[in-house]
Amino acid sequence: MTNNTYAVIMAGGVGARFWPLSRMERPKQFLSVFGEQSLIEDTVDRLRKRIDPQRILIITNHLHEDRTRELFPWLPQDNIIGEPMGRNTAACVALAALILADRDPDARMIVLPADHFIGDEEEFLCTLERAISACRSGHLVTLGIQPTSPETGYGYIQHEAEELAPGIHPVRTFAEKPNYDTALLFLKSGDFLWNSGIFIWEVEAIIDGFERWLPDLWEVLQELRPHLTSPRFHEVLLACYQRLQPVSIDIGIMEPASRQKGKVRVIRASFPWNDVGTWAEVYRMRDKDELGNAVHSLSREFDKPPVIMIDSNQNLVMTEQRAVALVGIQKAIVIDTADALLVCHQDHHQDVRHVIQRLKEDGYHELL
Amino acid sequence: MTNNTYAVIMAGGVGARFWPLSRMERPKQFLSVFGEQSLIEDTVDRLRKRIDPQRILIITNHLHEDRTRELFPWLPQDNIIGEPMGRNTAACVALAALILADRDPDARMIVLPADHFIGDEEEFLCTLERAISACRSGHLVTLGIQPTSPETGYGYIQHEAEELAPGIHPVRTFAEKPNYDTALLFLKSGDFLWNSGIFIWEVEAIIDGFERWLPDLWEVLQELRPHLTSPRFHEVLLACYQRLQPVSIDIGIMEPASRQKGKVRVIRASFPWNDVGTWAEVYRMRDKDELGNAVHSLSREFDKPPVIMIDSNQNLVMTEQRAVALVGIQKAIVIDTADALLVCHQDHHQDVRHVIQRLKEDGYHELL
Repeated sequence: MTNNTYAVIMAGGVGARFWPLSRMERPKQFLSVFGEQSLIEDTVDRLRKRIDPQRILIITNHLHEDRTRELFPWLPQDNIIGEPMGRNTAACVALAALILADRDPDARMIVLPADHFIGDEEEFLCTLERAISACRSGHLVTLGIQPTSPETGYGYIQHEAEELAPGIHPVRTFAEKPNYDTALLFLKSGDFLWNSGIFIWEVEAIIDGFERWLPDLWEVLQELRPHLTSPRFHEVLLACYQRLQPVSIDIGIMEPASRQKGKVRVIRASFPWNDVGTWAEVYRMRDKDELGNAVHSLSREFDKPPVIMIDSNQNLVMTEQRAVALVGIQKAIVIDTADALLVCHQDHHQDVRHVIQRLKEDGYHELL
Repeated sequence: MTNNTYAVIMAGGVGARFWPLSRMERPKQFLSVFGEQSLIEDTVDRLRKRIDPQRILIITNHLHEDRTRELFPWLPQDNIIGEPMGRNTAACVALAALILADRDPDARMIVLPADHFIGDEEEFLCTLERAISACRSGHLVTLGIQPTSPETGYGYIQHEAEELAPGIHPVRTFAEKPNYDTALLFLKSGDFLWNSGIFIWEVEAIIDGFERWLPDLWEVLQELRPHLTSPRFHEVLLACYQRLQPVSIDIGIMEPASRQKGKVRVIRASFPWNDVGTWAEVYRMRDKDELGNAVHSLSREFDKPPVIMIDSNQNLVMTEQRAVALVGIQKAIVIDTADALLVCHQDHHQDVRHVIQRLKEDGYHELL
């Protein structure tokens, strides 16, 4: 990719739906749910194939800054930035834009989440190359994933029929997570894509966007400008963030921008993608045996966990160190960690967050 | 009870159906599945209310002798006897009879398993008192439990209509574990009772029984007679046991004896009883909340385990030290121990033994 292409990895998530594996101090991006590596390692490795480490930035919560530095000791110190608190994605992107504009006014930014699954690396990188070209002259570009099922857990992007280049369209509208019937209509329509949360733009263009659509947020962050490389950076960042209203980049920038004709473009992406939002999605994405069981060891020291299935199928079992036996069990998610065990029916995967709620109410803070 | 009444507790079981809580070195009688105490402690405590410790014997496997002594330091040393190997209940009873006849030729014996649940202690002890009377003049007495459901996991005893005293009948026949349809017929018939495995007789009468119906077994054990209190006891016992054919007291003695008119008597017992054969029975016997969930802490240090149920009912959860969350789970048995986890559907409770089989095949001997 061009020498002025930067990747900004958003790694501020908490992932309560992955309890008991994810915890406050071990959010989703640090979990290895598909292979040996954590999701954030997969994300960085993919980008590294085309982007120099000097131009890869990670924005994370300050609580996870140390762990992130440990994972990527070869990244420049200044490329891992800890936010003092979560203020949603618009703040994160604005902070990155401010930093990059200072380093390189001609920078192009790829903004992407740390914790998504991407199935075809080559296709992914190729799509990014095309996006880099498509963002020239101030366009805000997003990747839309060709939907394969009527998902109710994703936002959608509707594109215009007009094709600017093969698979590149002007955006007509952004749609929130639909109900099932609407999702079915979206799937059948042919012009709705899943909103991947991956954006590509020139730093100048997104700064222009902040000035127009989120001027208050952008104004607050200007205080940071004289301190970008000073020892007072974190102190001033905290002061700024305390005054910010949380808003997502989708709602704060992309939606209003899409109402300006021709400003926002979407690329129809065809690589397998998943935001890995729930255990059920982990199950769906994993290799399974002939009975539909997926077994995964959570410990690198413990290759082949003794997991025994008797009359049991379509289960996901993850175990840290214990032997696990399932007898007569269907469609369960069994996540066995050192201090907590989850047994969840796959049809109830959305309800894992109620466990978090109950643990809070009952005062089991050490389990959160 | 009379001064010549002895209790012989048979504690040789392994209880593979209680994996992962029961193991080869921690069989069922040592588990506390209903309360604070283990099943064998409950059994001894019940008997102690009426029988002096001097007259309580425990026959266990030599592997469990030390643990048994630790549990009952106040029992006379010689009253805990370790069998060198399991040779089924006839050998166990014959050994006890040999020892008791040597101590007290007028002894009466109550023979009972260490690991059954008994719900009404007073009623149980009262029934034993009646049995002690009923065994006078050489009768072999057994307790039959009034059935409350068509159980296929128990043996049955059919009694004659004739009533020798209230609730005491001659035995017509012993029946093996029936299939469901037969069990239903047994239940409706009114003259079939569950075989509790609890027997009461004079030592002289059971010795007479061994001489008539299991003469070979009895003959072999005669070698032990001169060594009952000698240091060579265990050595000679091993030599004897190696030559014994395993046979149960039911098949070896009770069945042939019942064909001798008037020899065997059964007392209709009405105390709640359960042989605690599977996890499903533990679930059935335990107190449950309004959603039918039963939760039990396996550690005495850990009173109230954080067990969280979301849309889950009719489950049994036992946990040693971990938090457990069930989401959308019905009729499961979840047994969480330090090194192994079982998740079993209640309708598949009989299949836990297949787990043991698989662990053996796969070489996980440390988990057996």
